[in-house]
Amino acid sequence: MNNVTSSSNPVGNRETILILTPLARFYQEYWDNLLKLSYPHELITLAFMIPKSREGNSATAQLQEQITKTQKSGPEKNRFASIIIERQDFDPPLASQNEGERHKMENQKARRAAMSRARNSLLFTTLGPSTSWVLWLDSDIVETPPDLIQDLAAHDKAIIVPNCFQRYTDKYKQPAERPYDFNSWQDSETAQKLGEQMGPDDILLEGYADMATYRTLMAYMVDEDGDPQQEVPLDGVGGTALLVKAEVHRDGAMFPPFPFYHLIETEGFAKMAKRLGWSATGLPNYRVYHYNE
Amino acid sequence: MNNVTSSSNPVGNRETILILTPLARFYQEYWDNLLKLSYPHELITLAFMIPKSREGNSATAQLQEQITKTQKSGPEKNRFASIIIERQDFDPPLASQNEGERHKMENQKARRAAMSRARNSLLFTTLGPSTSWVLWLDSDIVETPPDLIQDLAAHDKAIIVPNCFQRYTDKYKQPAERPYDFNSWQDSETAQKLGEQMGPDDILLEGYADMATYRTLMAYMVDEDGDPQQEVPLDGVGGTALLVKAEVHRDGAMFPPFPFYHLIETEGFAKMAKRLGWSATGLPNYRVYHYNE
Repeated sequence: MNNVTSSSNPVGNRETILILTPLARFYQEYWDNLLKLSYPHELITLAFMIPKSREGNSATAQLQEQITKTQKSGPEKNRFASIIIERQDFDPPLASQNEGERHKMENQKARRAAMSRARNSLLFTTLGPSTSWVLWLDSDIVETPPDLIQDLAAHDKAIIVPNCFQRYTDKYKQPAERPYDFNSWQDSETAQKLGEQMGPDDILLEGYADMATYRTLMAYMVDEDGDPQQEVPLDGVGGTALLVKAEVHRDGAMFPPFPFYHLIETEGFAKMAKRLGWSATGLPNYRVYHYNE
Repeated sequence: MNNVTSSSNPVGNRETILILTPLARFYQEYWDNLLKLSYPHELITLAFMIPKSREGNSATAQLQEQITKTQKSGPEKNRFASIIIERQDFDPPLASQNEGERHKMENQKARRAAMSRARNSLLFTTLGPSTSWVLWLDSDIVETPPDLIQDLAAHDKAIIVPNCFQRYTDKYKQPAERPYDFNSWQDSETAQKLGEQMGPDDILLEGYADMATYRTLMAYMVDEDGDPQQEVPLDGVGGTALLVKAEVHRDGAMFPPFPFYHLIETEGFAKMAKRLGWSATGLPNYRVYHYNE
């Protein structure tokens, strides 16, 4: 592209970041965390894809209120280069978005196919020739280190993903943390063989007892005193927080809504990127936090 | 997307067209033909991807000269809404671009993989939320009907492709025409079986005697007195001239640089679109013309 870099020193090289968020519900904590990101906001463009539903209308209104506050009357250093809101025409795959139903295995495929289309629409319509990095950040990520972008970019990897956890209160009423995103993994022979025996339209899903893949999940690679810079190679990635060199997407890497090597959405993306010659890296000891529903 | 339509009456609905051209050499006839397109130019954005090579520099200079002439001093009705030029970093796959070498089977895969990346970069960086249609038009297409866009859009198809021919002088020194693009076809059982026997990274190519696919090629479906509006369903498409509803691309359909069901580039695109639920249509009796090298 036109002399655009995506380097380990993005601030020094004035590299532009596109933060992409498919948004169904608005969480104030998500926005507050965005504002705290220490990467120069004038180099950041935010773009949102929001369903054309009643819930989406409400989320749009809440988001726009915060945007006005930040961009018009807030401190100048908080203001982002630009903010784009797109509304999606296609129906949400499920009427309900509550935790129990959303995670049911039989709903996963339809839900993640719809999410793939939302991600693709957002990506294809906002990526520009001068974008250096794309940060995928789900709307329910409510806490990250303020240096998230610099920390991830410093590794100079094509695709890099932190470990997504969730804070909760344990049975002793003590604050605790548990892994949340199980889509970042290293492949296993068992999963490969499961795939070979499947029909062409079947997909492998992670985190279900009746489909034991024996993949090595980044969620369980945490070393409590481990180095947050420790890297592991990954074959599948989750998309709750995911930094991608824009070049990888420009090459054609997208989120397959159809089974691609029996993988869809972000896991299919990692496989597609691999087919394009790009590898994925995980940081098991670098945590970001998902909202506790 | 935000109330954008892509309908059979694009002029009436003021639908915007993005014309995408990967350009290695500049042909004056290509530009002259563009200027003659009767679709309202104020609804057309042109975008070019040009290699960062000496030949690319020369093509860029020639293109920019014509752009200046058209956009600055030409008649207002000729001026396009906007024109984008991007330069690609990656190396051209082959040093030579002459006809003989370019068409050698062993070079096809590398050449078309590089072309896929060029198309994807161009697409991902120029498609917007308000684009209705994408017209892929190769830089060596030197003659089309002036109503090309309206004629193709009138069919209201997700993906539609005219028949690409080449004018030449026959052995009796008479003007004649011959089919040029063999990438628009209907699949065959033979090709399917060939694919099944191939390694995962092998690709099926059309137009080579030592890989007889027995596909039905649109190039040979011409009826000399036939209706130019006659439609045929297609499984593979060529990209010399190709009209796509922007929604198809926004869903994620791109040009696979890797073997996708043993297909790459525009043929892989048709297959990927099919996996996303979109079909391709050909117009065997509607001709556009390729430069005669």
